[in-house]
This record gives sequence, C-alpha cells and structure tokens, in this order.
Amino acid sequence: MILNSSPFLLAARGQNMQHENFKTFIPVWFMRQAGRSLPEYRMARQDNDILEAILEPELAAELTLQPVRRYKVDAAILFSDIMVPLKIAGIGLHILPGTGPVMDRQFSADEDLQLIKPLEPERLAFMQDTIEILIRQLSVPLIGLAGGPFTMASYLIEGKPSQLHTGVKTLMREQPALWEKIMHALVQLSSSYIRFQVNAGVSAVQVFDSWIGVLSPEDYFRFAFPFAKELFATLSDLDLPLIYFGVGTSELLGLMSKTGASVLSVDWRISLRDVPSHIDSTVFSAMGVRDKPGAVCNVVQSVQGNLDPSVCLASWEVVEKAVLKTLEDAKAIHPRGYIFNLGHGVLPGTDPGILGAIVELVHGYDPQ
Amino acid sequence: MILNSSPFLLAARGQNMQHENFKTFIPVWFMRQAGRSLPEYRMARQDNDILEAILEPELAAELTLQPVRRYKVDAAILFSDIMVPLKIAGIGLHILPGTGPVMDRQFSADEDLQLIKPLEPERLAFMQDTIEILIRQLSVPLIGLAGGPFTMASYLIEGKPSQLHTGVKTLMREQPALWEKIMHALVQLSSSYIRFQVNAGVSAVQVFDSWIGVLSPEDYFRFAFPFAKELFATLSDLDLPLIYFGVGTSELLGLMSKTGASVLSVDWRISLRDVPSHIDSTVFSAMGVRDKPGAVCNVVQSVQGNLDPSVCLASWEVVEKAVLKTLEDAKAIHPRGYIFNLGHGVLPGTDPGILGAIVELVHGYDPQ
Repeated sequence: MILNSSPFLLAARGQNMQHENFKTFIPVWFMRQAGRSLPEYRMARQDNDILEAILEPELAAELTLQPVRRYKVDAAILFSDIMVPLKIAGIGLHILPGTGPVMDRQFSADEDLQLIKPLEPERLAFMQDTIEILIRQLSVPLIGLAGGPFTMASYLIEGKPSQLHTGVKTLMREQPALWEKIMHALVQLSSSYIRFQVNAGVSAVQVFDSWIGVLSPEDYFRFAFPFAKELFATLSDLDLPLIYFGVGTSELLGLMSKTGASVLSVDWRISLRDVPSHIDSTVFSAMGVRDKPGAVCNVVQSVQGNLDPSVCLASWEVVEKAVLKTLEDAKAIHPRGYIFNLGHGVLPGTDPGILGAIVELVHGYDPQ
Repeated sequence: MILNSSPFLLAARGQNMQHENFKTFIPVWFMRQAGRSLPEYRMARQDNDILEAILEPELAAELTLQPVRRYKVDAAILFSDIMVPLKIAGIGLHILPGTGPVMDRQFSADEDLQLIKPLEPERLAFMQDTIEILIRQLSVPLIGLAGGPFTMASYLIEGKPSQLHTGVKTLMREQPALWEKIMHALVQLSSSYIRFQVNAGVSAVQVFDSWIGVLSPEDYFRFAFPFAKELFATLSDLDLPLIYFGVGTSELLGLMSKTGASVLSVDWRISLRDVPSHIDSTVFSAMGVRDKPGAVCNVVQSVQGNLDPSVCLASWEVVEKAVLKTLEDAKAIHPRGYIFNLGHGVLPGTDPGILGAIVELVHGYDPQ
C-alpha cells in the first residue's frame, strides 16, 4: 500500500532521520486535532453528546477528516474516546463536556468485574463503517486508539477524572489480587478493541495511558508496567506502529521503552535531548534491578511529542521559536525516528491558524 | 544554641549520613502536618478563616505545636500560608476551603504591580509574636516559609488555583518585561518576609515553589530559575538551611541545585536512588549549555522527601513497606543528608495514627 511510504509511517518506523541520503522530513499531527478549537467541528457536533457522535459513522468520519483538510497533518486519528469500549462492553458512563468521563458506579469489588463484558464485534459495526469511509477518503494514515489499562482503571475506580488518583492508588496497593483482575480485563478489552480497528484498516495505534505519570517509578513497575507489557504482547503479531502515550513520564521512559511499544510519546517536562538516555537506560534504580540482556526488549523505533500545548496560545513569534527549538532538539533522537506533536492534547482556546502554521513550519524545516 | 545539634538541622546540613562513626539518624516532619487530618486542629480552627487563624498568634502557635506533640516530628513548621505576605502587602485575596487562594483581580498589566506594597514590619508583629511563643515552647527547630516566585505569580495571574497554568505561561512568554517586573517584586517580597522570620527566630526556611514542575526544563531555565537564584542570593548571608520545594521536578533538579538552595525537596515521581545523578548533573541539555566550572555553584547539602502522600491512606502493612523502601533508597543520598518527608502535603483523609507510626519507624530505622 502506498501509505507505507507515508512520512508518518516512515518516521514511526524510525526511518525519517536515518537515511542521510534523503532530506529529513518530519511528519506532524496533533493530539485532539479534531476538537473544540475548530469552528467546523463545533458546527458539525452541535450539541450532540460526544458518545453519540462517535457512534454515527458519517459524523465521526467527517470530524476525523476536518483537521486533515485544514491543517494538512500527516496522519488522521479516529474520532473516538478511550471510554468507548467500556461503554460498548456495557458499563454505564457519560462523557460530560468540560469534565470528562463520569461513571454510573465506582468499581470497588470482584463482582464489578462482571460489568465488563467481552466486546461483541457486531456492536462495533459503527466503527467498521467509520473506518471504511475514512480509508476511502484519506491519503494519510489513520491512527486507531485505545486507553491504557492504568488510565481506564483510574476512571472506573475514581468514577470521574481525578487530580490525586488516591482511590485507584489505594485499591492497587490494598487489593493487589482485585487490581490484577481489573487490569487483565482492561488489557483484554483494549486488545480486542485495537485488533478490531486494525482489521478494519487503521495503519497505527496509539495507547492513551495518560495518567501513568502520577505513579512513582516503583509503583509504575509493580502496578502498570506488567499490564502495558501484556497489552503490547497481545499485539506483537501486528506489523504496525504501537504508540504509547502518557504525561509526566520522564522517570518512567526507561521502563516504558521495555513494554513492547514501538513509539513513545513524551510531554514537555523533559527535553528531547535527554529522551534517548532515558529510553536506553537499562538500570531501574527504583526497582534496584538491572536488566539482564535479552530479558526485556527495547523495540522503540521512534519518539513523538513534545511541545507544551500552552505554547500554541501565544503569538506566532513565540510559537515559531519554540517549534524550531523542538525540531533542533529532535536531532538528538537520531537514529530513531521523530514525529512532531504536542506533549498533550490541543487546548480548546487554540487558534487553528497557529496549528496550520506549525504544520507548514515543520514540513519546511531544513536541519542543515 | 542546642538546636544546632538537632537531628533536623544536622541532616539539613548534610551531617546525618556523613559520619560513619555515628549511628545514622533520619529526622522526619510532614508538609501540612498541621491540618485537617488532625482532630485537635479541626477543633481549634472551628470555622475560622485560615488567614484569620494565621494572624492570631496564640492560635497559630497552638496549630504549629499540635503535630509536634502528637507525632514527635523533628521539626515544626510555622502555621502560615504562602499568600500571607501578598495579603499583608495589600493584595485582595481569600483562601477558600477546598479550593485555595482566590484573588480579587488577576494581574495582567504594569499598573497591577503597584498593588504589591513593600512589607511594613509593624504589620508583621503578629508573626513576631507567634514565633516568640513557639521558640519558648519548642524543643525542635522551627521552619519558616515563603512562596516561590513562580508559584505566587501563578496565583496572581491565574487568579485562582490552576491545573494547566495557561494564563501565567502565556504572560511570561508574551510579556517578558512585565514578567520580569512581577517576579522581581515577588522575590523582594518573599526575601523580606523570610528575613523577618529569621530575625524572629526560625531555624530553617522552606520555599514552596510548588508548581514549577508544570514548566519544561527550558521554560524553567528562562522564566523561573533566574528568580529563584535571585531569591536565594538575597538570603546567602543567613547561616541556615534553605529548602526548595516543588512537585514534578525530576528533570529540573539539575538546575534547581544551582539556585543556591541547600536542601532540595523531591516528590515521588523520581526514585531517591536517581536523585544524586540529577542533582549533580552539570549538563542542561534543554538549554544546550554546559556549566562552566565555578559559573554556578551547587551547594545542595541535603535531600528531603519523597513518599507519595497517598501511601498514607493505605493499611499499615503497605505503609511500612513503602517507608522502609524509601529509607533503603535514601542511602544513595549519602554523603549528603536526608530528611524523611512526603513528596507533597499530608492528604486531609490521612489517619494521624499512621503518621505517628511512620515517625516511630523512621526514628527506629537501623540501616545496617
């Protein structure tokens, strides 16, 4: 397929900065590129509930396409939400505008696990339709998505978005057996949800484990790492980029790079110049262990991120300087690939003109 | 003064883990040890506004003493708030329970600077009285406090506690001249506020620059580091420990250690085993610069932290294991000193019995 030579997929496979003979080309897309910052998005969404919009193939496809048309980004991301498979699997939840996912009940015991039913493919027909519409219309790769198990568990246990995550942290520490069951169930759910998207035609997948950065390195190692690794292992037969995203993960990158993910998405709390040493670290001091060679495998081929989304709220002069600094720092990622993106989602107040100008700047960047 | 041989001051000066001949003794105190988790605190505070309680010497002293009595911690911290000097200096603000500081108006222009009046010593008489009461009654050192300039600027500009800090970030990037004036004014304010406390008798000072971790390393270097350095420089003639606190600072520790602070307080997002290499780093990749020898001085003598406060919500079995792991990891801090503390403040739901048991466990710890 022609898409295999697309800048996004080349970079995700580590091939954009590797070939000295070719001009470096850095692909760019934005997390939440489809969203409230676009007037055409607000027009199309109207007052529809976001989950209803996702279930409507024509509308979901249109919302996916809007930012590709406007910004000329190098990848589309399926208009969806990490809570969709939970909803489909039968969990009562709503996504409230300005708040986020709110659950009908908080998970706290073994019997709650029965609420997570296996995904029935027929209930995902809407997504098959959306992806088919998109594949016909897109000339750039389509990224599928799923929630990371820790982040989904946090929503299930806290019942709503949390700043301190004390509920999920207390459950994982106090009830490790229940924690393991919840995480296994979520791994299964995300895994089959991803496989469905891949069968339908997406070219890459991003796992949004947004909140792992609230964990200490040791807690990440004990309570999140094994399940991220399990998730990526179930997908290892798929020959496509697996992007692993979280915020505040600076001290977790060494472990994250040993999960089987092939692309790590980093936020702005670490310089891109310091990312390689963190990724290639094989000593996990927090755990007091040193990797045995071959015991875990670092298959990270590419890095994505890391502009602070709040930079895009400033004037072009400020934005341009920050983007050029990011691109300059990204040279340190070589010989891995690099995908330009923000460190987290586009903020609602962002001027679409700024995002379009960023795409142009990144595409025209000459590292010589 | 006998306090100079107190475990807290010895550790803050790097002398608790240095002398192989002596048994290691690790001092412990808790950020927000005086607070809602204590029944005697809720009893004494009643429905008083927190700022009123701070202005009342007998009450403020009582609230400062309560955790020392109950927990046998090795240091008291003045019952106060980082917003107090702003209030005293004439800024309209309230501290709302469960929310935090809320300003009557948001800073956005040069004329707002006139709102910050120099601190008149007579308006700090209440604090002199509080500290005098405490010095008479305490047998452990008293820690004074002030806000870090970035964190105070964030409250002034955002007008209230912020998750994304987009207002303060946009102002610093868009209006660097105004930013510099605001930060200078706040440095002056914190500096004179700290000097007043030291003259009144505190034995150490903690600068709460809680929110610096929302900055990228480069933004920290440009917009916060110079002012933290300026603040500590104005205090360099004072012969007492200067503790510098923030959360999410893993990738900032190298720079923070070059501000002139003598103790760094770290949160749980980094293992104590990895702290020394971060503190002693002289290459700041984000800035693309390498320190010239002597150009900046690392005077860090001690490290404080880093237990995740949410651990204290779990059962003793879980807490004990986590505390022992922290103490084990703290050996890596040698030959610097180590002060046991949480990585952030005590959470309101914490059982005081757990905190008391932690103090006992730390005091009885034998590293052999």
